[in-house]
Amino acid sequence: MKTETVTVNLNKRSYDIVIGPKLINKATKIIASHLPSTRLAIVTDANVSAIYLPTFQESLAEYDIGIIPVVVDAGEKSKSFPVLETVIDSILAAKLERGDTIIALGGGVIGDLTGFAAGIVRRGIGFIQIPTSLLAQVDSSVGGKTGINTTHGKNLVGVFYQPKLVIADTAVLDTLPLREFRAGYAEIVKYGLIDQPGFFRWLEKNWRTVFSGGAERVEAIACSCRFKAAVVERDEHEAGERALLNLGHTFGHALETATGYDAERLIHGEGVAIGMVLAHEFSVRLNLASSDLVERIRRHLHTAGLPTQITHIPGSLPDADTLMTYIAQDKKVTSGALTFILTRGLGQAFIAKDVPQAEVRAFLLEKLSRHIDCRR
Amino acid sequence: MKTETVTVNLNKRSYDIVIGPKLINKATKIIASHLPSTRLAIVTDANVSAIYLPTFQESLAEYDIGIIPVVVDAGEKSKSFPVLETVIDSILAAKLERGDTIIALGGGVIGDLTGFAAGIVRRGIGFIQIPTSLLAQVDSSVGGKTGINTTHGKNLVGVFYQPKLVIADTAVLDTLPLREFRAGYAEIVKYGLIDQPGFFRWLEKNWRTVFSGGAERVEAIACSCRFKAAVVERDEHEAGERALLNLGHTFGHALETATGYDAERLIHGEGVAIGMVLAHEFSVRLNLASSDLVERIRRHLHTAGLPTQITHIPGSLPDADTLMTYIAQDKKVTSGALTFILTRGLGQAFIAKDVPQAEVRAFLLEKLSRHIDCRR
Repeated sequence: MKTETVTVNLNKRSYDIVIGPKLINKATKIIASHLPSTRLAIVTDANVSAIYLPTFQESLAEYDIGIIPVVVDAGEKSKSFPVLETVIDSILAAKLERGDTIIALGGGVIGDLTGFAAGIVRRGIGFIQIPTSLLAQVDSSVGGKTGINTTHGKNLVGVFYQPKLVIADTAVLDTLPLREFRAGYAEIVKYGLIDQPGFFRWLEKNWRTVFSGGAERVEAIACSCRFKAAVVERDEHEAGERALLNLGHTFGHALETATGYDAERLIHGEGVAIGMVLAHEFSVRLNLASSDLVERIRRHLHTAGLPTQITHIPGSLPDADTLMTYIAQDKKVTSGALTFILTRGLGQAFIAKDVPQAEVRAFLLEKLSRHIDCRR
Repeated sequence: MKTETVTVNLNKRSYDIVIGPKLINKATKIIASHLPSTRLAIVTDANVSAIYLPTFQESLAEYDIGIIPVVVDAGEKSKSFPVLETVIDSILAAKLERGDTIIALGGGVIGDLTGFAAGIVRRGIGFIQIPTSLLAQVDSSVGGKTGINTTHGKNLVGVFYQPKLVIADTAVLDTLPLREFRAGYAEIVKYGLIDQPGFFRWLEKNWRTVFSGGAERVEAIACSCRFKAAVVERDEHEAGERALLNLGHTFGHALETATGYDAERLIHGEGVAIGMVLAHEFSVRLNLASSDLVERIRRHLHTAGLPTQITHIPGSLPDADTLMTYIAQDKKVTSGALTFILTRGLGQAFIAKDVPQAEVRAFLLEKLSRHIDCRR
């Protein structure tokens, strides 16, 4: 099967994303050809390291490349100051210098944490990403957003830091739980909804082979990276247009906060799926788009097995006013005004500033009134 | 007295350094005219806040600008992960957004710590520096190096992050202990020795008025900022030429490590003064420069009250091999080879890569044999 390469053009910080099946087995060869130095640290989590680390170490040994493994706990809790400090301490103890390289092998948590560490150790050290989840391959592999969480919210501390190379092994995704694959798929759909109506139509036809792992999977991931790269290239530091990538995320983040980031109830991509439907419904309410559009999007996400409305979240949710607080806390707030990504049609998303809080609240009240908590 | 403005040209990240006496009293007016927003945090230390914070708060109130004070302990120990986390927590608790501003009011420690916090909170938030030490005004105010220390060494974790504005009040320096003023002066001399022989000659003539606070002080600080800016503009991220600014620092840092960063024995600028003399002596030893040059530099630094040789450091020092370990640990090491800033004459410094370790060791042995520990 063909390997696709997407180049993210950011002048001196440009890099390639190599996408294809079984790349992890060839990764050492790709890395060896990219590496200017011989000192290498690899940050991964306990789950991923058990599956891939030994093979990885063995094949690097063939190239006489030593490796310093740094294994952290799996899960969102590792995106914290204490774990960041531990990772940095391991890197410094191994005496890595600016020209050396840190590899992130794992999902979004590992990528965000490792990228942040790489960005601040000695004010920036080489960084290669090997994302092992669909979400990480289509989202965090492009654009250099790195960071950790604090008690005040998610991703509130971090840097923009671009990797030197991303290796996305599409076969690794076969071992993902279906629910996680679906959640990553929501981000793929998002690119269609932002400004690629043709891609959305293609997904409506081809989503099954994206899921089953055909050439269409490589294609869908490559297209997603390409679309995201185009936005990031025009606005690396999110001064404007890049905010479009937050389609579905303002509502989605509020729902994640509302469920206390309980992965049994809601995971990020599911929040984004519901959030995208809400963003489209809210656009209809503001007379910006037609209700047919909402139905079409809801149908596709539902067919792919994703939740599409607040009522699909198990357990009780806070009231509209509490959700409004979470929305206002979201970092996409500019000087107190609410900024939303809304749409005028299929693949016609835009940044709406100064959205009236009262409208959002009324809309949420309506959505929540239909929410029946089956566990009560 | 005239106020000087030095512009650091870094495209979108360009900023002004305003230099002159009594600027702290006018700072609020300058800030108010620069500020796009109204939320403002000010990070300072216990010593500085006692002198300047109340006045500062009062005069900002005139412009209806609220202020969130964040006061940390004075001293190098605040450049640590725990203090960084505290500062970030205060900023996030105050709900500062990307368009808001954090002011660093203090010396190098406050500037480095606050700049790092500003660079990583929400992946970058506005930052204004009001340096209150001579060292901070002529060194850390230009170039955006920020960071904290770890058990592995100084400044090993940080980012390059440029302020939006620097306000250097030259009258504030009258309250500095003489020893600290002298240490800052060593960095001023450094610019002459790197590539400004004319400036060095000017300093030989005018250093007394720089110390006493005449227009020459403003001039010397403005020149230093201008010289450093020129280097930084050509090499913002220290890929090459910027390393010249480390003249005297490789030896200097090793001596600081050797004295355990005990400020009673040696402070940074003093280490740099001795380090600059050593770098020139070492250049003579390698037949790169004449011994007259060493004498001239030693004389000027000595006249200005600075230590100029290892024997001037009180207390016992480790042996040459231990010092060699400290030198190799210094972050200016590239793939194991020793890089030094050496010189071919007055103001003719250059980056020497692959300096033989044996030569450095022999040189240090010689220097240390003359070191008599008076406290033994």
